[in-house]
Amino acid sequence: MRGMEIREIGEFGLIEKIKGCVTTQKESVVLGIGDDAAVIKETSGNYWLITSDTLVEGVHFRQEFATLWQIGWKAGAANLSDIAAMGGEPRWAVVCLSFPGHMRVRDVEDLYRGMDRVCSKFGCDIVGGDTTLSMGGMTISIAVVGRVDEERLATRRGAKVGDAICVTGDLGGSKAGLESLKEKGQTYGYAIRRHLEPVPRIHEAKAIGDVARVHAMIDISDGLSSEVNHICRESRTGARIFAASIPVHEDTREIARRRGESVLDYALSGGEDFELLFTLAPEKVDAVRSHVEKNTGTPISVIGEITDDEKMIVIVDEDGNEEKLFPLGYQHF
Amino acid sequence: MRGMEIREIGEFGLIEKIKGCVTTQKESVVLGIGDDAAVIKETSGNYWLITSDTLVEGVHFRQEFATLWQIGWKAGAANLSDIAAMGGEPRWAVVCLSFPGHMRVRDVEDLYRGMDRVCSKFGCDIVGGDTTLSMGGMTISIAVVGRVDEERLATRRGAKVGDAICVTGDLGGSKAGLESLKEKGQTYGYAIRRHLEPVPRIHEAKAIGDVARVHAMIDISDGLSSEVNHICRESRTGARIFAASIPVHEDTREIARRRGESVLDYALSGGEDFELLFTLAPEKVDAVRSHVEKNTGTPISVIGEITDDEKMIVIVDEDGNEEKLFPLGYQHF
Repeated sequence: MRGMEIREIGEFGLIEKIKGCVTTQKESVVLGIGDDAAVIKETSGNYWLITSDTLVEGVHFRQEFATLWQIGWKAGAANLSDIAAMGGEPRWAVVCLSFPGHMRVRDVEDLYRGMDRVCSKFGCDIVGGDTTLSMGGMTISIAVVGRVDEERLATRRGAKVGDAICVTGDLGGSKAGLESLKEKGQTYGYAIRRHLEPVPRIHEAKAIGDVARVHAMIDISDGLSSEVNHICRESRTGARIFAASIPVHEDTREIARRRGESVLDYALSGGEDFELLFTLAPEKVDAVRSHVEKNTGTPISVIGEITDDEKMIVIVDEDGNEEKLFPLGYQHF
Repeated sequence: MRGMEIREIGEFGLIEKIKGCVTTQKESVVLGIGDDAAVIKETSGNYWLITSDTLVEGVHFRQEFATLWQIGWKAGAANLSDIAAMGGEPRWAVVCLSFPGHMRVRDVEDLYRGMDRVCSKFGCDIVGGDTTLSMGGMTISIAVVGRVDEERLATRRGAKVGDAICVTGDLGGSKAGLESLKEKGQTYGYAIRRHLEPVPRIHEAKAIGDVARVHAMIDISDGLSSEVNHICRESRTGARIFAASIPVHEDTREIARRRGESVLDYALSGGEDFELLFTLAPEKVDAVRSHVEKNTGTPISVIGEITDDEKMIVIVDEDGNEEKLFPLGYQHF
């Protein structure tokens, strides 16, 4: 009897186990393991965010589909997106890279240039890290430290009954881009760019915070269904999502249609869209929408509402039929 | 022509290349890539340290020789040691773990308990991270954020001609422990503990800073010869090391002797001792030594002196013969 394997309890089961193994002594830790980033309240009153994410070759990316520059960009973007999800601004990053010994110097340079490009674009300096040999492919772990104003701090917990549920941009594009890359047609530039060069919604998070205090926020890294579930579980609420209101790009629709697949599935469980999902008082929506669109060009869509029926997350189709929405996002293991 | 492989330029060649690929925009970055930790000067005047390190299964550790708890401890200790090397105190850590899908939940728990044990012992809270599948063995990347008083901040640059070169504790023990483990005798408890459960010199760094301002400091992770070279290169000085003054534990001597190997080689290039190597004005040595020993129980040894002959690092044997000391520490790739 050697005990349970990790894959039997899944990612969120494992996170609960890990929480049980670590001790938190410092009063400064406002929020530890379990959100997009940890929140630290410094003695000066500043709030700091710390987050880290890993991309593993063969699990999260393949060199067949992406340049090293794009892999670097995406690794950086995924981390910056976690800072955006907390309402913050990224400041400094450290990068741990493991790679096979036969890797080319110029490939490593391309990787760092891609990371640096997205980091510097959003005001984040790469200040250190570690390089080591791997036994297989590449592993890229990035940790980002950011800051956030107390009044802009957004977590997964805090959604209120009656809140409007909003998303930035459009969903399902990354999944559509990946499918398009696998077909090697590469004709759908928009979707492919969404998959390979996602833009973290730092500016949008800032613009949202300029106008309103969101009640809960998360970035859509695993898929909408999964992220709505996170917010509802942490906020102890339910949610009703209107399928017809979920924003999807025309290219995403076209790719799904051509492949005979459900575009709704792309949006609900495609993952890696790195859009923001947030809830706020419905009377604030118009002001947020116009301010964000004016300042960033990114549309805001209302896709549903927070309900008081804890554990009941439903999706409503165009005919008004309700169905339970299970978290069917990207399964990490 | 696909370009040079990484192993052709080595770790330090690669770090130089990486430096050329990243941009630093923020005035807050006092020190970026290239020391044990990055140094950030916050608007409040606080100095922050950020460091990260990776341990790769098969490269840095084997489960054959260590429990998961010990692997976790050592991964944490290696990072905390980098904070000690800057004169700082660790505060918060994030952990990225990649593991094979068949790994047991209880093994992951043991790993985190080991990490948490060393972190909490030195005042550092594990506040987040990421867990992902790997394609091979485990990869553990930890990033630690710490703080340091401006007057205690120590870097590799700053050694002055005439400085005494000092080390904490003793050297070569980790290498001796590894050799002992390979023989499966496991009779040398001290050396094996040095290899599997190294103690980061956080308290010693603090005690040193209580009494004197060090001019340069680094932790001995790759081996004494390599670290002396780092300090001299960054400080543009030379150094003279007295072989007979290098502190070595009796068990380390015994293991080397039994194996017919040079104990001096263990001390110079064994690596993973995680002691502190520092330089300071010779008149400060007595006060530092007695304060550190009184407060931590750890001895301080003077092993050499900083010289003005840049690029000339020599080791002097008991008969006064000088030999050039090349950086022969652990080669990462």
